[in-house]
Amino acid sequence: MLLLVLDLLGIAVFAVSGALVAVRQRLDIVGVLVLATVTGLGGGWIRDVLIGDTPPASLEDWRYLLVPLGCGLLTFWFHPTLGRMDRQVNVFDAFGLGLFAVAGALKAAEHGLGPVPAAILGMVTCIGGGLLRDVLSGRVPVVLTSGELYAIPAVAGSAVAAIGFELGVQTALVAVPAAALTTGWRLLAIWRGWTAPVPGVRRT
Amino acid sequence: MLLLVLDLLGIAVFAVSGALVAVRQRLDIVGVLVLATVTGLGGGWIRDVLIGDTPPASLEDWRYLLVPLGCGLLTFWFHPTLGRMDRQVNVFDAFGLGLFAVAGALKAAEHGLGPVPAAILGMVTCIGGGLLRDVLSGRVPVVLTSGELYAIPAVAGSAVAAIGFELGVQTALVAVPAAALTTGWRLLAIWRGWTAPVPGVRRT
Amino acid sequence: MLLLVLDLLGIAVFAVSGALVAVRQRLDIVGVLVLATVTGLGGGWIRDVLIGDTPPASLEDWRYLLVPLGCGLLTFWFHPTLGRMDRQVNVFDAFGLGLFAVAGALKAAEHGLGPVPAAILGMVTCIGGGLLRDVLSGRVPVVLTSGELYAIPAVAGSAVAAIGFELGVQTALVAVPAAALTTGWRLLAIWRGWTAPVPGVRRT
Repeated sequence: MLLLVLDLLGIAVFAVSGALVAVRQRLDIVGVLVLATVTGLGGGWIRDVLIGDTPPASLEDWRYLLVPLGCGLLTFWFHPTLGRMDRQVNVFDAFGLGLFAVAGALKAAEHGLGPVPAAILGMVTCIGGGLLRDVLSGRVPVVLTSGELYAIPAVAGSAVAAIGFELGVQTALVAVPAAALTTGWRLLAIWRGWTAPVPGVRRT
Repeated sequence: MLLLVLDLLGIAVFAVSGALVAVRQRLDIVGVLVLATVTGLGGGWIRDVLIGDTPPASLEDWRYLLVPLGCGLLTFWFHPTLGRMDRQVNVFDAFGLGLFAVAGALKAAEHGLGPVPAAILGMVTCIGGGLLRDVLSGRVPVVLTSGELYAIPAVAGSAVAAIGFELGVQTALVAVPAAALTTGWRLLAIWRGWTAPVPGVRRT
Repeated sequence: MLLLVLDLLGIAVFAVSGALVAVRQRLDIVGVLVLATVTGLGGGWIRDVLIGDTPPASLEDWRYLLVPLGCGLLTFWFHPTLGRMDRQVNVFDAFGLGLFAVAGALKAAEHGLGPVPAAILGMVTCIGGGLLRDVLSGRVPVVLTSGELYAIPAVAGSAVAAIGFELGVQTALVAVPAAALTTGWRLLAIWRGWTAPVPGVRRT
């Protein structure tokens, strides 16, 4: 029950971020609702399609579909207010990040994937929705260009969860510290302005 | 038999629209053929991959592949003529829209999905090909930005079909009015210039 | 064993091309690693998802994942040198092209697809990674616009392999000439400057 609420909350935060991008890129109501849904649920869909667990659970369960659609409508009407809540959105997003990284990695591991693929699929769960959002709205994906520490904390938490699963550690014992690693690192990166490296530039 | 012909006709219209975009965006022959195929069949592929019905039927049956390839070649040669037939293309497209919306929703429902996911997958069948077309040719997807009534009539017909299936109504009895709703609404929207809402703009 | 080495070599060449695009488009370290992986393995993933063979073998086997990640890191550090090796990269790429075209078509044929779909999926194995690379880095896919002979030699070799499989020819007897056709045609096209046709332009 707590997990369901956390999961839906994470989806809601992602969906609002997708809807805000849609508003800023001047999409119409269809664009706002599609981007909210794809951003909220797309990462899990890519993971589930790649591991062959179809239809994705979040596509079968209407509660999972109504959350991003509802968030899309709210953003459509109240985007001036929501658009000013960047800071709060970032904090909630960091919690969603930890949850999705761990849940995605554990799901992949339960489907028989080893720690390296499971860690990668945990990260895909986190960033896949944002990739689809940006590609569909005509932007180069922020997660690939911004130099922000976003995917790296995600893959770190995913790796911890996947290795713990491999070693047979009890799920709760590995999930909480792994999610805390991702969320904590992400929050610290925001507060301290830490960034990821970019390629060195030379004259051509 | 009638259904097969209608299905292939719908695919052909979508394929021509894809090939015309390819020509306008200055793609080469490969681009024209890829965009024709992806626009004609891509929506069904996304639906089938998401519900786990792979390989998609239209990938196994060479007739389904030759239609968009042939339309791509025709457009490659005769695009100045076809490009001037916007009006006719739009009308045929509206019929394809109704057909794809209903067929997509019913297929999803037959695979055990409830009315909400089935309605969404019906719409995905309709707009998925156009999304791929626009992303591959470097445009923000028209269906998300134009404010045209396209996805909304599609999802309406899909929802009627999915609800009818859920209530156990005979397929023909629900499919025809559902497709008529989508096609009729779409045609009216073109003729009367009806549009979908866009987010309100405020100063930042 | 030889096949595994060739396969990993092909993936490595594709991965380097992906990482170089990432560097040129100013992506960060995450972008470089994601593009290297997606370019090296993405074509096979799309093929496997479409034929329903999930999880893709290259996602289950960590050796297949470490090759593009390693190539991505090497490119991140040594891109000024690698970026000047266009000619060598093109030659290796032509060998990868032949290998992927044949391997992709045979895999699709073994999964029960006829020659037309198998030939198309062989080509998808070759160009899918590059499509994802370009879409994720904000470019119109080169393979659809450049007018280079790339996809056409690929689909030719795929078709030969698929038809040979259909006729029951021994795999080795069909695979080698089919791959040679693709690779040879591609190399000749580079050396002689052969191009694919583009749509004729008229005044509108």
